[in-house]
Formats: sequence, C-alpha cells, structure tokens
Amino acid sequence: MPLESYKTLEHKFKRLSHLDHLAAITGWDEQTKMPKGGGKVRSEAMATLMEMRHDLLISDEMGSLIKQAKNESLTSDWEISNFKLIKKQYLKNKSIPSDLVSRQTLASMASQQAWRTCRADNNWKDFAPLLEKTLRLTKECAEIQSDIFNKSPYDILLDEYSPGIDQAIIDPIFNDLEEFLPSFIQKVCVKQQDQPLIEITGEFPPAKQKELGLALMKVLGFDFNHGRLDESHHPFCGGVPEDVRITTRYDRNELISSAMAICHETGHALYEMGLPKEWLSQPVGAALGMSMHESQSLLMEMQACRSPEFMNVISLQARLIFGDTEMLSAENLYRQYTRAKPGFIRVHADEVTYPLHVIMRYKIEKQLIDGDLSVKDLPEVWNMYMQKYFGLSTLGNDMDGVMQDVHWPSGCFGYFPAYTFGALIAAQVYQSALTATPEIPKQIARGDFSPLLGWLRRNVHQYGSKYNFTDLMVKATGQPLNAHFYIDHIQKRYG
Amino acid sequence: MPLESYKTLEHKFKRLSHLDHLAAITGWDEQTKMPKGGGKVRSEAMATLMEMRHDLLISDEMGSLIKQAKNESLTSDWEISNFKLIKKQYLKNKSIPSDLVSRQTLASMASQQAWRTCRADNNWKDFAPLLEKTLRLTKECAEIQSDIFNKSPYDILLDEYSPGIDQAIIDPIFNDLEEFLPSFIQKVCVKQQDQPLIEITGEFPPAKQKELGLALMKVLGFDFNHGRLDESHHPFCGGVPEDVRITTRYDRNELISSAMAICHETGHALYEMGLPKEWLSQPVGAALGMSMHESQSLLMEMQACRSPEFMNVISLQARLIFGDTEMLSAENLYRQYTRAKPGFIRVHADEVTYPLHVIMRYKIEKQLIDGDLSVKDLPEVWNMYMQKYFGLSTLGNDMDGVMQDVHWPSGCFGYFPAYTFGALIAAQVYQSALTATPEIPKQIARGDFSPLLGWLRRNVHQYGSKYNFTDLMVKATGQPLNAHFYIDHIQKRYG
Repeated sequence: MPLESYKTLEHKFKRLSHLDHLAAITGWDEQTKMPKGGGKVRSEAMATLMEMRHDLLISDEMGSLIKQAKNESLTSDWEISNFKLIKKQYLKNKSIPSDLVSRQTLASMASQQAWRTCRADNNWKDFAPLLEKTLRLTKECAEIQSDIFNKSPYDILLDEYSPGIDQAIIDPIFNDLEEFLPSFIQKVCVKQQDQPLIEITGEFPPAKQKELGLALMKVLGFDFNHGRLDESHHPFCGGVPEDVRITTRYDRNELISSAMAICHETGHALYEMGLPKEWLSQPVGAALGMSMHESQSLLMEMQACRSPEFMNVISLQARLIFGDTEMLSAENLYRQYTRAKPGFIRVHADEVTYPLHVIMRYKIEKQLIDGDLSVKDLPEVWNMYMQKYFGLSTLGNDMDGVMQDVHWPSGCFGYFPAYTFGALIAAQVYQSALTATPEIPKQIARGDFSPLLGWLRRNVHQYGSKYNFTDLMVKATGQPLNAHFYIDHIQKRYG
Repeated sequence: MPLESYKTLEHKFKRLSHLDHLAAITGWDEQTKMPKGGGKVRSEAMATLMEMRHDLLISDEMGSLIKQAKNESLTSDWEISNFKLIKKQYLKNKSIPSDLVSRQTLASMASQQAWRTCRADNNWKDFAPLLEKTLRLTKECAEIQSDIFNKSPYDILLDEYSPGIDQAIIDPIFNDLEEFLPSFIQKVCVKQQDQPLIEITGEFPPAKQKELGLALMKVLGFDFNHGRLDESHHPFCGGVPEDVRITTRYDRNELISSAMAICHETGHALYEMGLPKEWLSQPVGAALGMSMHESQSLLMEMQACRSPEFMNVISLQARLIFGDTEMLSAENLYRQYTRAKPGFIRVHADEVTYPLHVIMRYKIEKQLIDGDLSVKDLPEVWNMYMQKYFGLSTLGNDMDGVMQDVHWPSGCFGYFPAYTFGALIAAQVYQSALTATPEIPKQIARGDFSPLLGWLRRNVHQYGSKYNFTDLMVKATGQPLNAHFYIDHIQKRYG
C-alpha cells in the first residue's frame, strides 16, 4: 500500500514542530529578554499555543490517519521508528482527559509559584499542601497511562523524560553507585585536603567573561550561524536545532563557574546541532530524551572540559583576557575544577558527590509515586538520606533541603535520574570515543575538538531518536549502560 | 437576547490575539536576535502560524457566530465597535481565496528578497518583473474586496493600513501641501545657509549611546516593566502592548540620529502602552492603524523632542555622558535637529521635505493600482517627480530612486500616506494638547512629559479603535484632519 496516510502524518507533525518552534523561541525569550510585566499575557499565549498543539495532536483526524497508516508498509528504518514515536505521542496525549491536563498544569503552576517565595522564606508548611496537590494530579495522569502502556506509574514518568529507561535498568546501576560512592567521597576529601590551591579572586567583568565563553564555544565547535549565547537566571539550552540558544550567568566576583556552565550548555547545543537534518521536523529527529541530552552536556563538561588537557586551552584563553597570573595556570584551574566536597545543594555539587543527590531523590520520588511515602514526611526522609550519604543535617533547613529544586513543584517527577544517567552515559560514550581515537586528549589539549565532535556526530547525534536507549548504547559503545566507566573515570581523576 | 455568540467571538479573538502575540515576539526576535541560519525554519513556523490564524478566523464556526451575534443586542459602545471590527476582519479574510493569499505572499517574499540584492546592484531590470507580479496579485486581492466593501481597490489598500482614511480625505490635504511646500522648502534652505552650525563629530561608543537612549526613554515615560530597547538593522517598534520592544541602531561616528530614532520609537511604544487594558485582546483594543500610530511617534519626535525646549533635556543628558562640549549645546543641537535639505532618500528626509516624498509615492501607487501606470515606466515617472519637487535627477540611479523603499516589493501599496498623515495628525493633536495645557513646553524643558502623556492617554491612546479615524480626530481636536496645523508648525519652526 502507498504511504499516503503516513506521509500526511509527517506533514501534520511538521506543523506541530512549527508550533514547538514558536514555543521554544518565546520560551527562551521569557527567560532571557522579557520584561517582568510581559509575563501574564505571555503565559496566556503559551497556554493557548499548547492547547492548540494538544488539540491538533489528539484530533480524530490524527487518530484515523494512524489507524490507516498501520496498514501501509513502511520500509525505511527512519519511517518505522518515526511512526512508532508518532503513535506513542498520540496515545500518551489522547489517554489523558483535557480537563485533567489543565488541572495538573494549574496545580503545578501554583506550586511552582509558591515555591519561589516559600523556598526563600524556608516555609515548608505553606508549600507542602500545594506540592501534595501537584503530586496527586501528576500521579493520576501517570496511573491512566500505566494501564495503557502496561508499565508502573513511576516507569511512565521516567519514560516521559528518559524514554527507554525504567526502574529495572536504574536499580542495579544506582545500587553499584550507592555502594561505591560514600566511602570513595571520604577518601577523596581527605586526599584533596593537602593539595595546594590558589583561590581565584578579583573582578571579572561580565563582558570579559562573555568573551571567554564565546572563545570556548568556538573551540568546542558551536556554530554561531545557528545559535547564540545570552544571559539568564539559570543556565539552559533552548531554541531549536537550527537556532540553538544557550545561556549562562555572570558573577563579577567569580570566574570559573560561568565558563564551565558554558561548556556544559555547549554540549547540549552540539547535540541539537548534530541531529539528523532531514528529520528535524519529526519525532524521530529529536534528541533521545533528557538522559542522552545530559550525557552530551556532561561529556563536554566533565569528560572533555574538566580534563587536564583542556585546562591548557581554558588557561590560555583566560590569561589572554584576564592577565597572566598564577591563579589562572592550567594546574591551578584543574585543581579548582576537580574539587570534590559534600554539600547541601545538588546544583552546586561536583561530579563525585552529584550522583548521591540524585539517588536519594530517585528513591524518594519512587516512594511518593508508589504511595509508600507522603509529602508531609519529606523533610524527615530528606534529612535521613543527607545524614547517611554526606553526614549533613537539613532539619529545620528545608530551603537547602527538600525545597531546593524546582522539579517537583513543577510536576516533574521522574526527571532526576536523567542527571546521573547522563554522567554515566557520558563516561561510557567518551571511553568508546577514546578507544576509537586515542589521540582525542592530545587534540583537545591543542584546542581541536573536531575529532571528538565528529565521532559523537557519527555515533550518537546523527541518529536522533531512531534507536531506543539501550540499542543506541550498544551501537555506540558495544554494551548496555553500566556504572563501571563512570566509576573508573572518577577513580582515575580523583582516586 | 443574551450575548452568548458575541461573547464566544470575544473568546475566539482572544485566542487569535495569543497567536498574534507569538508572531510579534518571534518577529521581533527575527530582527534583533536570530542568527542567520535560523531563518529558514523560522519562516516556515511563521507561515504555519499565519495559516492557522487565517483558518481559525475564516472558519465556518466564526461565520455562524457572527451571523448569530447580529441578533444579539450589544449595549456597550466598546462591544458595538468591537463587533464591527470583528465582522470587518472576518469578511476581509474570508473574501480572498487562500490560494490567492499564498500566491501573493510568495510573490512578495520573492520580490522583497530580490530587492535586497537588486537595490544594492542598482539593478532595476531584474527587479521590475518581480515587482510587477507582486503588484498584480496585490491588485487582484484588492479588487475582490473592492466589490464587497464597495470601495475602489486603492481605497481598500489604504484602509488596510489606515482604516477610515481614503482618497477623498487625502486628496485635498495633499493638494494643500503640494501647493505650499516646494517654495517653502527653497525659502528654508536659503535661510539656513547662513546659520552657524557646529558639526557633531567624534567617537560615540554604542554602549554610551544606549545609555543616552535609555535616559531619554525614561524621560518620555517609557515603562521598562513592560518593554525594552534593543538593536536592529532598522529601528522599529514591535512586541505587544504589555511588552513593547523598540529598537534602534548605533553608528559610533554619529550621535544624533539614534537618539532621535529612540524618541520616535518611544512615541510608538507609549501609544501601545496606553491602549485600553481591558480590551487588549480584542480588535477594538488595538491602535487605530498606521497613520494614528505614526502620529504618536511623530508627535513625540517632531513636535515634542525636536522642540527648542527639549533640547535642554537632550543636551544635558548628552553632555553628562559624552562630555561638556559646545557642539552638544542646546542651541547647536536644535540647529542640527531642524536642518532641512532636499535629498534622494525618504528615510533620511527632514520633516519639511518628507511630505513631498510621500505625496509622489501616493500619486504613483494610486496610478499603479488604477492601471494608469505600468511598472516599466516607474523610473521615468520617479525622476519626473524628483525633478519637480526637489530639482534632483534619479535617472540611472534607481537604487536611490524608485528602488529605495521596501514597501512595494513587500506588497505594501497604500502604506506611504500614513507617514505624512502621521505628521499632520501629530501637529493637530499636539496643538490641541497645548491649547488645553499651555504649560506643556515648559514642562518638557524640565524633562517632565507626564502632563503631555496624560493628555494623550486620555484623548487618544485609551480609545484604541473604538472610534473611526475622523470621529477620533474631532473628539480629540474639535475638527477633522487638515493640513493647517502642520503648515503652521513648520512655518513657526523653519519659516
């Protein structure tokens, strides 16, 4: 049979991608350029756009096209994968009543807004009931899909952010990490105590930090014809593959974190820029979820840019801009960039302690969704894990404890594992790239990222969502994901 | 009868306004932030958005709601005007076949693109056939509407940009100007020859020019909680009333034009910011077309900001930023800002010579639409007018002649009169404000624009599109538009 219905679906999804384009650009604008007073009408416009997208996606016409396309014989792998993803998107959205969607959206907007002020006031009491409502409605959505896709509700949520990754994959890997990390962290801290370290102090004007950031982006291979760098409250990578917008923030009293945030976001951007051009308007042309996305940013940040080799590059650029001082030597920068220390805040954590922040959130949100834990007990459970993993107490300090992250108040349960999976994938993929091209570290030391980027393009980026997670891992690295490459990596760097 | 159908229409137009919001913000982005490589997919996304807007607007549902609402008894003036505008928008869009719309859009995109390169190459020959096609399709659209609205095709086009303004209104006014201006211009030029004038030279870094621009915007009453200033190739005012985005461009060797461009765009912005808050999502809440919009920018620029009184303000600010030099004295700035001189280029023209640039374009495009003139004869006719009005020849110099403007290649026939109508409205409205509040010039000299702005808010801005053009003029100034206030104004300032 000819592919008429399938081709019509492609056309319709191309139109949806145009709506996503508008959402991406105006979303970026909201976080980088929009004056505060523009916020109200912007939210309304966005809500209308999302509603229209949803209506188009779950229309009867879409339903019958999908039914008809099932009888058409797709031959190309790309089309087969694309159709699979189209069906999944349709089913997922069709299954949840619009009314429930909007109640969940409203609840999460309310808890997210309350979170901003309550966190600042360390006010758990007023925040908890709103979080509870968001949790309940998010669960309700997940439970409906649970029946349709024959997965547990929490696996549904995990799949939302990291398609192809479920608890069966996560549990053994997180167990390995949980076993290894706590004592390793202690060892690292003791070892680093004796290392000489020059504090990087002084005044670093934002315009000059930006100059450094742009120079690093260029070295890493960012294509400025298809993207740009701006400032925002939190660094992020937005826009669309043809026009990738990364951001950072500058603190004039601090140099090294914005530079590394730029390397991180550039990793995200390079993934977007490397997605298959001819499929960009289709689900199969998109990045393979947040774990894989985070792996590409962390591969750049943690594997490549915190390597001793890259310190030559960043040191050279920094000294050109800020003057030739000892504190900006490659050696001192390397020590700065590989400092490990337990702390309260996930987003400030180094690559050694970070996974434990994620693992505790994973354990907690799993129980929240399964109903084994209720919101009111969160501060206590949080404290229990912090004590266990880091020896830190968060009792009475919820702003630096359970209230520190925006994810849960935004209704994003099941997102956190993506951060640590990203780190593990990064280690495993980077090792494969090194095995294929052992000269990569030397090339990085010379500021030449093109061999690494070329390898990533060929083995990861160009596939978009053509393969599922485990198949892509096997294709790119010869084996499913495991924790050993990451453990090897931190042992070499920190042990 | 209850207002059910009308209220549903309001709801549907609110959703359309959300799509317009997305178009406005991404349109602004395209001109200020977008990297070049993002252009292709952006155009596609915009085309889809416009298509969706069009489909929603001319849907059968909209048609029957309008039919039903006609039987509902609207009582508020706002609702009555709004419904009138809704019907007009529906009818206009419904009348033109989608196929014709897209052929016209494609033709104008092609001629606009060709224009960029052909103008630079002074290549009329290759450009003319594309312009001819755009003209033909634009005419075709206008002719269809001509039958429906019982107006001549050119009046249809005029109404598109300046609702309520037609040739019957324009002709006598432009005749008055055409009679007065040529000899007046000669007189002014002779007089100004003997005026002392210090050239404003030096280096004016963009960051400092921006500082000056922001200071002036603040003085004029721009609300930075609902808007911002950026850079673009051509200055414009974009965004939405809740989030107005104005732009300028900086030339580091030139100071005065970017500052005045900012005052001009701020005038546009203040109009948007003053539109009736409760009607912003409806047609009746929008600005009353381009003539009225231009009047608000020109009122600020020409009437208020080029006044001798304002020169105290701008001189003070400029000397604070660029140093206390004689060239930045109020007297010298005033002479600079009121220099009149015939020239080839409309956008560089002063307020005295500008109307003749517009009048010749009006006469020409009227004949083009009526079929009395064909595209191939344009260079010759252009030269004829330039000789007659300014004694300048454009033979063989089409880049500075008929090819200088983007309007016609973009399919915007009927737009030009708005510029001069803006100037005339500005003079007439400003005079009314002065009559009501004679202290305004003194207040401006002190940098206090709030009395002027308050008057404009109460007498113009707050009405949006509630009244038609002539009714609003009578309401605000006591009489229909005429040329005398403008002629008085330039006689006082230049005579």
